[in-house]
Amino acid sequence: MKETNPSPERPSEFDLIRWIRSRVPACPEVPIGIGDDAAALRLPADALTVVTTDMLIDGVHFRSAEASPRQVGHKAVARSVSDLAAMAADGLAVVVAMAAPPGLTQAYFQELFDGMKQAADALGVRIVGGDIATAEMPLTLTVTAIGSGAEGRLARRSGAQSGDVLMVTGELGGSILGRHLRFLPRLREARWLRETVTLHAMIDISDGLAADANHIAEESGVGLEIWEEAVPVSADARALAANSGGTPLEHALQDGEDYELLFTLSSRDAERLLRRANLPVKLTCIGEVVNGSGLWIRRKGEPHRPLAPKGWKHLL
Amino acid sequence: MKETNPSPERPSEFDLIRWIRSRVPACPEVPIGIGDDAAALRLPADALTVVTTDMLIDGVHFRSAEASPRQVGHKAVARSVSDLAAMAADGLAVVVAMAAPPGLTQAYFQELFDGMKQAADALGVRIVGGDIATAEMPLTLTVTAIGSGAEGRLARRSGAQSGDVLMVTGELGGSILGRHLRFLPRLREARWLRETVTLHAMIDISDGLAADANHIAEESGVGLEIWEEAVPVSADARALAANSGGTPLEHALQDGEDYELLFTLSSRDAERLLRRANLPVKLTCIGEVVNGSGLWIRRKGEPHRPLAPKGWKHLL
Repeated sequence: MKETNPSPERPSEFDLIRWIRSRVPACPEVPIGIGDDAAALRLPADALTVVTTDMLIDGVHFRSAEASPRQVGHKAVARSVSDLAAMAADGLAVVVAMAAPPGLTQAYFQELFDGMKQAADALGVRIVGGDIATAEMPLTLTVTAIGSGAEGRLARRSGAQSGDVLMVTGELGGSILGRHLRFLPRLREARWLRETVTLHAMIDISDGLAADANHIAEESGVGLEIWEEAVPVSADARALAANSGGTPLEHALQDGEDYELLFTLSSRDAERLLRRANLPVKLTCIGEVVNGSGLWIRRKGEPHRPLAPKGWKHLL
Repeated sequence: MKETNPSPERPSEFDLIRWIRSRVPACPEVPIGIGDDAAALRLPADALTVVTTDMLIDGVHFRSAEASPRQVGHKAVARSVSDLAAMAADGLAVVVAMAAPPGLTQAYFQELFDGMKQAADALGVRIVGGDIATAEMPLTLTVTAIGSGAEGRLARRSGAQSGDVLMVTGELGGSILGRHLRFLPRLREARWLRETVTLHAMIDISDGLAADANHIAEESGVGLEIWEEAVPVSADARALAANSGGTPLEHALQDGEDYELLFTLSSRDAERLLRRANLPVKLTCIGEVVNGSGLWIRRKGEPHRPLAPKGWKHLL
């Protein structure tokens, strides 16, 4: 972790880096951590290195006037790690680049870091490096998450095939009411799924169920049909619909930022899964792969109709 | 690579991602590239994964009114890869997170991407993923570079030892006159050094010779003395000094953004290096490890005096 354009006028950023270093202990998987030009990570033998990067911007992905710094830090880490979960990869580490407006206090930064650290600890990943810059701009955090996975066991968007059913974890919609600031990505659940069944395609729901299902359909070259009554609509989606003009189902389909796992697998594997006792997470079968292409939705007893793959913009 | 908060109103960002995908061919080291939730990379057997992240912000690290989009893209990639060079790591890939103001044109973005792609190609690394967001803020690029290195062969800041001499590649100072927008990081030169001598400590000069030498001294727990007359002062540093009120030497010591390699090695290895014909880069011996701690500068025939480890802020 190093500071961009240091100067004697801003020694506190070096102090912050020192403070961060003191809070991130050494571990065998990270032979080189914070404090050098780059970090070095030891992955399991023969594993691929999995990498994903995401920005979190004040006014777009959170509002600093509403979210606590701890929540902001939590979300920044959780959001990137969710993409590792979407690949059924194992989480290993994150690096964090932060651009902060000049007025950001040391106390804010420390709370922010604690939020990142708590999320990382809860997910079993380590903060191994970063970059800090000061500029007249909204607080911006880019978190790059690094994980590992055995080749052939990573879940791609492109693997959905004829005969597959579509499943989802948890409940969808209305995350804007607060869940988007405190969700824990389904990293462990993804690993459990990987070890329990053969995942054909997987994505995490960030853009919204409809938009992300469409990503799977497009990348896999298949059609996907969603069963309207089966979609697990969250209480938040219902609460939101009371005033939004949308229906609870529309919120579940379009809100996004659920960070649940959406995946396809053979119907045999799906049955096997649903028969198990003690599932680590709520699992719902919400649709299936259909002939042709595109995204469809069907109400019981009616013909299916096209579903627009649109997501909502939450904040801006 | 995926877009943050997509909406039907901004379909062009999905188009851009499609355009990017068409320009980044598949290769065996990247089993999963742009277009999934994360990328997957195949590293050499037994290598550590090396990772570093850096932000490039309009108004801090470049001015969009002065730099071409191609130069901005080039610098974003070059700057992060320079940290891999500083570790004597091999370069493999980059992921790019971009936040762009709403007014950024598609033509600007395509030029920017071409600049990133050209830099990546010149350095033998691949663009394997990213994130695109639109927000009312200065254009901001976070590039995370991923490389590899055998354990025990990575050059750290902390390895300088008694008896070492301090060497530097190239010439220093005045990069603000243009070099900071077109430098190619010393990735190949670092590998050549790693294969030719035993590097004890290394850093790339981003903050400035004095500040970065101080990083080596502090991390290694040694003192470092710089020989005033030996510092390779660039023509740019001289040009700048004509009007800046500083001396050429001060520019070489403090300007930063040289992205040259600063390293220590045994005096025997240094002599061996300098005796070689056909060096791949200008190499200069500019000082040595001394007893105690801190950063010092010495003019021939005089006692050494303390050197403040200050760097200059270029732009803001």
